[in-house]
Amino acid sequence: MDQPHISGSAVIITGGLLDTNNAKTAHGLLRVSNRFKIIGVIDEKFSGQDSGDIVLGKSNDIPISNDINSFIADFGKPKYAIIGMATKGGVLPKELYASVKNILAAGVELINGLHEPISQNDELRKVADESNSVIHDIRISKKFEDLHFWEGKVQEITATKIAVLGTDCALGKRTTSRLIETGLNDLGHKAEMIYTGQTGWMQGAGYGLLFDATPNDFISGEIEHALYECWKNEKPEVLIMEGQSGLRNPSGPCGSEFIISGACDGVVLQYSPIRKKFKGLDNYPANAPDIMDEVKLIETLGSRVIAITVNEENLSDKDKTSVRSELASRTDLPVIFPFTDDLAPLLNSVLAIKK
Amino acid sequence: MDQPHISGSAVIITGGLLDTNNAKTAHGLLRVSNRFKIIGVIDEKFSGQDSGDIVLGKSNDIPISNDINSFIADFGKPKYAIIGMATKGGVLPKELYASVKNILAAGVELINGLHEPISQNDELRKVADESNSVIHDIRISKKFEDLHFWEGKVQEITATKIAVLGTDCALGKRTTSRLIETGLNDLGHKAEMIYTGQTGWMQGAGYGLLFDATPNDFISGEIEHALYECWKNEKPEVLIMEGQSGLRNPSGPCGSEFIISGACDGVVLQYSPIRKKFKGLDNYPANAPDIMDEVKLIETLGSRVIAITVNEENLSDKDKTSVRSELASRTDLPVIFPFTDDLAPLLNSVLAIKK
Repeated sequence: MDQPHISGSAVIITGGLLDTNNAKTAHGLLRVSNRFKIIGVIDEKFSGQDSGDIVLGKSNDIPISNDINSFIADFGKPKYAIIGMATKGGVLPKELYASVKNILAAGVELINGLHEPISQNDELRKVADESNSVIHDIRISKKFEDLHFWEGKVQEITATKIAVLGTDCALGKRTTSRLIETGLNDLGHKAEMIYTGQTGWMQGAGYGLLFDATPNDFISGEIEHALYECWKNEKPEVLIMEGQSGLRNPSGPCGSEFIISGACDGVVLQYSPIRKKFKGLDNYPANAPDIMDEVKLIETLGSRVIAITVNEENLSDKDKTSVRSELASRTDLPVIFPFTDDLAPLLNSVLAIKK
Repeated sequence: MDQPHISGSAVIITGGLLDTNNAKTAHGLLRVSNRFKIIGVIDEKFSGQDSGDIVLGKSNDIPISNDINSFIADFGKPKYAIIGMATKGGVLPKELYASVKNILAAGVELINGLHEPISQNDELRKVADESNSVIHDIRISKKFEDLHFWEGKVQEITATKIAVLGTDCALGKRTTSRLIETGLNDLGHKAEMIYTGQTGWMQGAGYGLLFDATPNDFISGEIEHALYECWKNEKPEVLIMEGQSGLRNPSGPCGSEFIISGACDGVVLQYSPIRKKFKGLDNYPANAPDIMDEVKLIETLGSRVIAITVNEENLSDKDKTSVRSELASRTDLPVIFPFTDDLAPLLNSVLAIKK
């Protein structure tokens, strides 16, 4: 699944959703991309604008075009086009179908991180074949002979192991993981992130797994294998596990694998104070958890929260001030807005538990 | 994955381990088998004995033979041979290789519930082809187009939903689930078990999933789908979810999917008082949980334990008496040894929470 030969220039397609957290794959690639050189975004809603202005709050000189043909006419042909969205159940949205077809017809190779295996779509495969293009379905499981079962060697790892968990999905766990990794490395403490999503793979992270495409019996073993190999080969002081979903998210509860099988030494807990319901589940009875209930659950599972990181979505500066003081007083933990705050308190909370 | 055409006479192979809980697949099939008609067991250690005497404590007139050829000479040719063991990581044990080869050479079709895809073993496939036999690898994921993502319709189900969870793997969760199902049906309360392992599928259960072979993202949706379809089609009063592994088992923590995504109304907790360590993890630091810690974790996850069921392994009658009184006084819950006790208190605890 590592496939280091897949690399080169790429555009990202986001189907009119570039400014929403459905485009979190695109956001990740616009922040960090070591595998691909991102040269453009295809999004009809933001055509002509700068993608950094939309996503990062500052220009990045990566243009947005209306469609693949106008991008090629203006800037030349990229090697790849990457589907920059995560969808419920990993299906290809109808709205993107024509766009994907155009991409393949233009001879641009498709990087598909959705569950849906586009290479098995007869019409699209035919278009790809005729245009000498290739469809890369990357969110697939390893073969049986390449999968690892958990065996307990995680206990040999002497590096400090952190998990970045969240109270919900699409809250910024991967981005916070990256910021901790970069921040620690900048301070001279070698840190490595273990990716668990297709975006991490696309960004070129060296160690990890495609968590949600892996057969359940091998999840814990693949986490352990990634931690162990990274520790052995790269000799980091700190290993940072990117969490998935949330411990109580009914569409797929997740997190105990990192705490128990990954034997993490502490948890950074990503939280959104405005999400009263889980993402996409406004009409389901269960509410998104209160922060203290989540801290308690993590303790019951045998770990501890070392810092709260807050997703800033829809928060004014005034909101942020009150959220910060309320969370700090309720949890007695460092509270950090990772996009805007000085990261020192967050990094210090990690370094404080270093073995 | 339902494949109703796979049915007929079968022997079970257990490689000298028939009396251990590694042969739990065999034990399950000797108790309940609606898909296959079990006519023999192949186990060199117990050859000539009656399999019921070894497994069930009473004769069942299902003989044990030394090898497939002597079985065929004595009793005729079965249509299938079923691998009756669950192994760590689902690999085919070396000790069974020759036995599997003989089975295929004899023209008997193989039912393989291990993860390891035997049909992809060149030598064994060649033997099967030459003997006009077939290898059925049944522990594989559904195709993408047949997988269901969780969508919340579990909330529409008006039947009572019970999960049978355990503090460890191989403790008897499936057997307890079956006993509850049978006991409730005998009382006139229609009950259906949702299977989650390959043994349940082999036994012929109608609704369920191969939990540990399913890509992680679809676990919750497949549970919901099985519950919903079973409820809609069979109209039971009670749905019983067979749990997997244990909530804190480091080789694969599991259980919150049934509590949170399956929205269970109560948990029956299977426990072994003599397992101080998780099965197979004697040298790993983490201990098997104390019963009260597990009850607390289930409450923190939003459900409640309604009864404790105890695995009798290695317990004398005297031990059982002291275990019973200690667990009852600590948990204040009904404590049942499901193989030997009257099940009324267990069934009553389920009926007491019926909606």
